[in-house]
Amino acid sequence: MGVNSNKVENFSCRETNTTTDESVVVMPPMEIHSVSLPPHKTTLCKLRQRLGEIFFPDDPLHRFKNQSLGRKLLLGLQFLFPIFQWGPEYNLKLLRSDIISGLTIASLAIPQGISYAKLANLPPIVGLYSSFVPPLIYSILGSSRHLGVGPVSIASLVMGSMLSEAISPVDQPILYLKLAFTATFFAGLFQASLGFLRLGFIIDFLSKATLVGFMAGAAVIVSLQQLKGLLGIVHFTTKMQFIPVMSSVFSHREESMKRPKLFWVSAAAPLTSVILSTLFVFCLKSKGHGISIIGHLPKGLNPPSANMLYFSGSYLALAIKTGLITGILSLTEGIAVGRTFASLKNYQVDGNKEMMAIGLMNMAGSCSSCYVTTGSFSRSAVNYNAGAQTAVSNIIMASAVLVTLLFLMPLFYYTPNVILAAIIITAVIGLIDYRAAYQLWKVDKLDFLACLCSFFGVLFISVPLGLAIAVGVSVFKILLHVTRPNTLIMGNIPGTHIYHSLSRYKAATRVPSFLILAIESPIYFANSTYLQERILRWVREEEEWIKANNESMLKCIILDMTAVTAIDTSGIDLVCELRKMLDKRSLQLVLANPVASVMEKLHQSKALESFGINGMYLTVAEAVVDISSLWKSQP
Amino acid sequence: MGVNSNKVENFSCRETNTTTDESVVVMPPMEIHSVSLPPHKTTLCKLRQRLGEIFFPDDPLHRFKNQSLGRKLLLGLQFLFPIFQWGPEYNLKLLRSDIISGLTIASLAIPQGISYAKLANLPPIVGLYSSFVPPLIYSILGSSRHLGVGPVSIASLVMGSMLSEAISPVDQPILYLKLAFTATFFAGLFQASLGFLRLGFIIDFLSKATLVGFMAGAAVIVSLQQLKGLLGIVHFTTKMQFIPVMSSVFSHREESMKRPKLFWVSAAAPLTSVILSTLFVFCLKSKGHGISIIGHLPKGLNPPSANMLYFSGSYLALAIKTGLITGILSLTEGIAVGRTFASLKNYQVDGNKEMMAIGLMNMAGSCSSCYVTTGSFSRSAVNYNAGAQTAVSNIIMASAVLVTLLFLMPLFYYTPNVILAAIIITAVIGLIDYRAAYQLWKVDKLDFLACLCSFFGVLFISVPLGLAIAVGVSVFKILLHVTRPNTLIMGNIPGTHIYHSLSRYKAATRVPSFLILAIESPIYFANSTYLQERILRWVREEEEWIKANNESMLKCIILDMTAVTAIDTSGIDLVCELRKMLDKRSLQLVLANPVASVMEKLHQSKALESFGINGMYLTVAEAVVDISSLWKSQP
Repeated sequence: MGVNSNKVENFSCRETNTTTDESVVVMPPMEIHSVSLPPHKTTLCKLRQRLGEIFFPDDPLHRFKNQSLGRKLLLGLQFLFPIFQWGPEYNLKLLRSDIISGLTIASLAIPQGISYAKLANLPPIVGLYSSFVPPLIYSILGSSRHLGVGPVSIASLVMGSMLSEAISPVDQPILYLKLAFTATFFAGLFQASLGFLRLGFIIDFLSKATLVGFMAGAAVIVSLQQLKGLLGIVHFTTKMQFIPVMSSVFSHREESMKRPKLFWVSAAAPLTSVILSTLFVFCLKSKGHGISIIGHLPKGLNPPSANMLYFSGSYLALAIKTGLITGILSLTEGIAVGRTFASLKNYQVDGNKEMMAIGLMNMAGSCSSCYVTTGSFSRSAVNYNAGAQTAVSNIIMASAVLVTLLFLMPLFYYTPNVILAAIIITAVIGLIDYRAAYQLWKVDKLDFLACLCSFFGVLFISVPLGLAIAVGVSVFKILLHVTRPNTLIMGNIPGTHIYHSLSRYKAATRVPSFLILAIESPIYFANSTYLQERILRWVREEEEWIKANNESMLKCIILDMTAVTAIDTSGIDLVCELRKMLDKRSLQLVLANPVASVMEKLHQSKALESFGINGMYLTVAEAVVDISSLWKSQP
Repeated sequence: MGVNSNKVENFSCRETNTTTDESVVVMPPMEIHSVSLPPHKTTLCKLRQRLGEIFFPDDPLHRFKNQSLGRKLLLGLQFLFPIFQWGPEYNLKLLRSDIISGLTIASLAIPQGISYAKLANLPPIVGLYSSFVPPLIYSILGSSRHLGVGPVSIASLVMGSMLSEAISPVDQPILYLKLAFTATFFAGLFQASLGFLRLGFIIDFLSKATLVGFMAGAAVIVSLQQLKGLLGIVHFTTKMQFIPVMSSVFSHREESMKRPKLFWVSAAAPLTSVILSTLFVFCLKSKGHGISIIGHLPKGLNPPSANMLYFSGSYLALAIKTGLITGILSLTEGIAVGRTFASLKNYQVDGNKEMMAIGLMNMAGSCSSCYVTTGSFSRSAVNYNAGAQTAVSNIIMASAVLVTLLFLMPLFYYTPNVILAAIIITAVIGLIDYRAAYQLWKVDKLDFLACLCSFFGVLFISVPLGLAIAVGVSVFKILLHVTRPNTLIMGNIPGTHIYHSLSRYKAATRVPSFLILAIESPIYFANSTYLQERILRWVREEEEWIKANNESMLKCIILDMTAVTAIDTSGIDLVCELRKMLDKRSLQLVLANPVASVMEKLHQSKALESFGINGMYLTVAEAVVDISSLWKSQP
């Protein structure tokens, strides 16, 4: 530790004989504390700690601490299969709630499943298959109690648009189906790997702003596609009236979350519309109406599809790409929805475990004729409001879908396609969250820019590129903040030891002979040049101001390092360089309150030695008091 | 301002009747200050200020303020052509120093010019041309007084390796030359544009760590190339002895900067070696020695080359790419060298103006048979030590090169190529800065990783990709810090109002019933999920600790926001969400010392209203005192 060994002692207080002289600083006398280095740790220990923070921020194994072996085994089982956690305490009362909510989401899931499968250009029956196997698997593995699992609009439309760019679902339906299952497999593999490798934080880079723009852009694309289809196919149905009706029903979805009495309307609307319109078309059937209908749907359970996975050939890259993008999008929705409802009921979902659950359910799904599924916002909201208590509601829903698959498929023969298009349009129009966009504009212009980029990028370029641009803008925003950080001049609030921004607090006053600067950012290679220029400009402006106002000469510059939360080698060079440059102008530079990691790096790079015992203070107040008293004693 | 209008009043103090009760907090009584919003500014005004900080951090026009029109014109002229600034005060004494230093760098510049041109696979004479026109232009436009301008090793070898990958300089010498001039033109255009658009901060992203690794990698490549060449060509010369001798001379370059007496050795070494070896070969000429020599060099000034610029055709993309990369590398070297020597003599160089000067000099150079030039480290060091006072030393050097070009070219006929290879190797070996690499390892492991990536990337992949990877690692480091920020538990230092990290300061003690957390990073989309999990984990761990130690119950969580220098919409959601979740557990959440921009965003998003007057404090100390006294009065 060399030179600094005596400084590492905690709080070896230096006494100051501060006389309260009006001309210098009006401040009560105080003890001066030394700045200490953080406790020494080896590189290995630091690396372990750092990796722990990166990969295990939630300390998932804390439950296992200080437990017996048997208990550890049980906890491990519960950890892997959350069903063992709530299963033993399951009772009839919970079951009753779960049955009601399960049946409710089933009534939403069946028409949604059929519609979303059409959105992905897949046979409608695949949508029902996807509402059967994945919810069952999720109910065993998942840690959310309210997540309603099934196909979702975003992933469906992205899969539909990405795959049909390369392959026509009409001309090559088998290849298309194969690619869809393969993409689902890779989506699941990717999701499960993210969870297993604990890289879940990658989805955090899809910020809310990006998603708002992305969903709106995607919704516009799909609505236009569907509307075009509608206008082209149907001649004399009353479809144009459906849209405003349905959209008004669905656009009140958010309100209905707040007024649970009304949610039955939105939950029951799709099934009711399907039943009514099917009956309507059925009555017209003898009249040669020309209305396009679903037609024959095969009865029976999910056929296995593992043999349809496609691991070689020219479209493999497309399948992987589609899988990655639908995978990350559906993961983002699933995790966000799970977190939302968990926070409403005050429990926690483990992001990485959820990813593994969603991933495994998609991998299993890809082998049983399902396409990409995740936690759906609309289903989960309905599930929550219908009083779901555990993942059993997903089992009930899956059972209802099972009954439908086994016995009720012929009933959908006369369901008009137009009602499915209407369901799709109302669903995706609900994704356009203009209020969120307005809020972004109001609060953060750069977030709004990211939102716009993702909206227009998706609309006019392509889904992956649009998303990439929006992520780029979001990252650029972080870099911009680092590249051009705030620096503030601070002043003393009279009668206290508090120092605060002069421009923000009118009560704060300049301390004569001192220039107190706060740097509001880590000091990195990306901003060290800027900070050097900016600090020298502050000094120059301060000296000009002093000259113009005949104030007492500038003698000391205090850098408040509280917000400098990290420093790299360029940053250390800056500090040393600055000290030398100011030294040549007979100005003293001292640092106040460097954080642990900064202190450590200053020590390792020997920069600390050049500052010495009088160059570091624990607070700005102590620096001012100590240095002024030093000036007094050596006039 | 609504709800907060009464809070915007500065320091409407609330009185607290703090009784100093040992069981709660031992602390002198204090006034409680309100947290104020920053003064209101319009969006336009904020945008202007922000753009000002991004593009004009050094306030380049501050000299023009409050000046008469005539004076403004003069200042403008001086601003554009720094020669008008120092020109009028130029005198004979300065000229004497400049002549000495100019002739000294000329003695280095001539052999270096020839060698570096060979490094770029260009005819040796182009190196001399490049030491004539660019220095003249720089002496008029440049703001550094010590920069020695000419070809540099990095840019030369990058240009050589990038162009010769596509085109053989032996088979298509004219096309190669054309591409080199075109690349130089684009390098200059790029450099001048960066300066003109004030985007100079882009070069800051090439961090020191990246450059250390890059230069070492490049040096290894070139040394191997040259060594292979040497071993292949020469049979019985004593070249193998030259290398250690020369390298020992050159590797003391750094020491010679510290011991100015010795710098003459390194400055004169290249010219001396050239003269001696030329004489040696000249004496052997009758014996058919087989030593490869430079051969005929054309006498005369730079021929114009504007007609050789190549603005169409299949190699244009290559020329532009080469131009961009050599441009940014030479700019980085030039600016860094300029700043280094300016700081030694305590004056400032304006980065953006320097970029325009270097860019214009390269554009002019590309039209007069010169290739990429910049401020060279070795020349500038020699220049500085030889006592250069102004850019006139560059004019003197150019004049010396002029004389050489006009009259002395035949003297170089017998100069052996081996001596040029030796000069190149010693120059590039000096670029391997293993001490800097060791320092990086010691201080910052991730910086060292960036350095390694750039070293191996350049060595085994390619120059542009190696650089891109290293920049990627550097940016990733910034993002990692943002994605996984530090959070600290703080404690009170007894008898003071200072709160500091419990783990770092042993003297700091926990405050009963409070959990005081400091977040050391802006809160962004990229870390809001992590922070939520981490804060809830702190709360959980604190509650477990309290249970185990029978301490008084946790009632309040204080977030110290001093280091949260920015927040985005996701961050605001986090704060609101956290408040709600803790509320459900009957825990109070208050914020201490939010910075201006955070306060403003909390206000704009209406999050402030939910916190109310008792949810914000100016310091942690005030929060603790006020809340404990509140608990006292409402038991």
